[in-house]
Amino acid sequence: MKNMQFPEIFGYKILKELEMIKMKLVLLRHGESEWNRLNLFTGWTDVILSNKGIKEAADAGNMLKGKDYDFDICYTSFLKRAVDTLNVVLDTMDRAWLPVIKDWKLNERHYGALQGLNKAETAEKYGEEQVKIWRRSFDVRPPALEPDDPRNPQLQEQYRNVEKSELPLAESLKDTITRVIPYYENVIKKDMLEGKRVLLVAHGNSIRALVKYFENLSEDEIMGVNIPTGIPLIYEFDDDFNMTDHYYLGDQSIIETRMKKVAEQGKAK
Amino acid sequence: MKNMQFPEIFGYKILKELEMIKMKLVLLRHGESEWNRLNLFTGWTDVILSNKGIKEAADAGNMLKGKDYDFDICYTSFLKRAVDTLNVVLDTMDRAWLPVIKDWKLNERHYGALQGLNKAETAEKYGEEQVKIWRRSFDVRPPALEPDDPRNPQLQEQYRNVEKSELPLAESLKDTITRVIPYYENVIKKDMLEGKRVLLVAHGNSIRALVKYFENLSEDEIMGVNIPTGIPLIYEFDDDFNMTDHYYLGDQSIIETRMKKVAEQGKAK
Repeated sequence: MKNMQFPEIFGYKILKELEMIKMKLVLLRHGESEWNRLNLFTGWTDVILSNKGIKEAADAGNMLKGKDYDFDICYTSFLKRAVDTLNVVLDTMDRAWLPVIKDWKLNERHYGALQGLNKAETAEKYGEEQVKIWRRSFDVRPPALEPDDPRNPQLQEQYRNVEKSELPLAESLKDTITRVIPYYENVIKKDMLEGKRVLLVAHGNSIRALVKYFENLSEDEIMGVNIPTGIPLIYEFDDDFNMTDHYYLGDQSIIETRMKKVAEQGKAK
Repeated sequence: MKNMQFPEIFGYKILKELEMIKMKLVLLRHGESEWNRLNLFTGWTDVILSNKGIKEAADAGNMLKGKDYDFDICYTSFLKRAVDTLNVVLDTMDRAWLPVIKDWKLNERHYGALQGLNKAETAEKYGEEQVKIWRRSFDVRPPALEPDDPRNPQLQEQYRNVEKSELPLAESLKDTITRVIPYYENVIKKDMLEGKRVLLVAHGNSIRALVKYFENLSEDEIMGVNIPTGIPLIYEFDDDFNMTDHYYLGDQSIIETRMKKVAEQGKAK
């Protein structure tokens, strides 16, 4: 018996060693929010999760726990739909005690003056193509908020500790990338290099910024990528930080349904 | 009109200046947990809030918001009934984006082998006086967990990053004080000295440790102090860190009812 166990133990050790050099980053888009449900442009509007969104978060936590995922540190945005999703995931995983870092740099893309407008109505008014350009084009900003708009982040308590000049009145996806990627490079990657297992809960476009970066996608290609809500997206890296694999966790049909739903949100009803 | 406003503005400025040197620390005991409800010794057992406990947390958040309290940083323990209470409070106050520090040093007193026992049954078995001694005496430890008990924190994932020699198998209130006060002195007080407004969400005995310290209570006196669940307890300090005032927020009758409930939990039924 002892001899038979030897190769197994040896194999296990090799696997552990391989695992140690295989860095993983887990990305998760928050569950459905009240404004996703109502089909409104949300951006930095600080809306709560819908009941369905809370369930999506718990499902994601159970999925991660079921697949033996564990983490050393978690990152999320300043927006409660992401913070709350993370809190539900951590509770579900019995990991409420893990450290959590919140940073506005992981916020959703700022949708400027479109925030609060019904996506279908905006599409009817401006045309589906214009909405698609605003939602999916790389460097076109939506109409900006007026500086005296109470939604200007410079006027909001939530951003009182942020350098005012850094805060946007509207963002293109390019603008979002310009704040997300340096944050990943300077903060999150450092944790990963120290061997920490990172969970990042954020938004459709802040996650899209990372997807474009990791997969080296073109500006056109990233337009076609729809991040489903509440489905863990795993990126694996070798020790030179080359991305070696990426995949969603869970049932393929659920993933496709949620991606399709995101893609359809910009269409007129 | 302009002349009439002058003294008011001047008065307001003086008030603001006074406020700046008046440091406040807000303590909050987590809402009712499932095991509070069942009247079991809880200690480090990681139980969830009851529905009533969630409501107590939301009420505390609304009370703080209603009285214009605001914070710069929050502290809590590693136990989910405290973490979840804090999360509910922050959501209610629209402050989900505030930084949160979690530390095991703010955990409840470790109740050793009493954990999981019904308080009334334990009182029947050992006598009400013995239970009161274990619950309320200053330096008597309850029976310790066996080192191979799966509840030994040294064996639990939750404490995997804590120096093993620091983790207890049972604690007296004195032991709890011995870890809470240095944490307050070395970590929390530093934030307060930098002008940060601190919210600390913790447990009956980790809060009792601070109460004894701030109010300079004797070992006997602290035995008679019952911290109600979900009621913000405010301590004010002058710039030499002398405690100048302390009070609970909210309706006096609710506070007294909850204190009485805590006091009665050790009695045989």
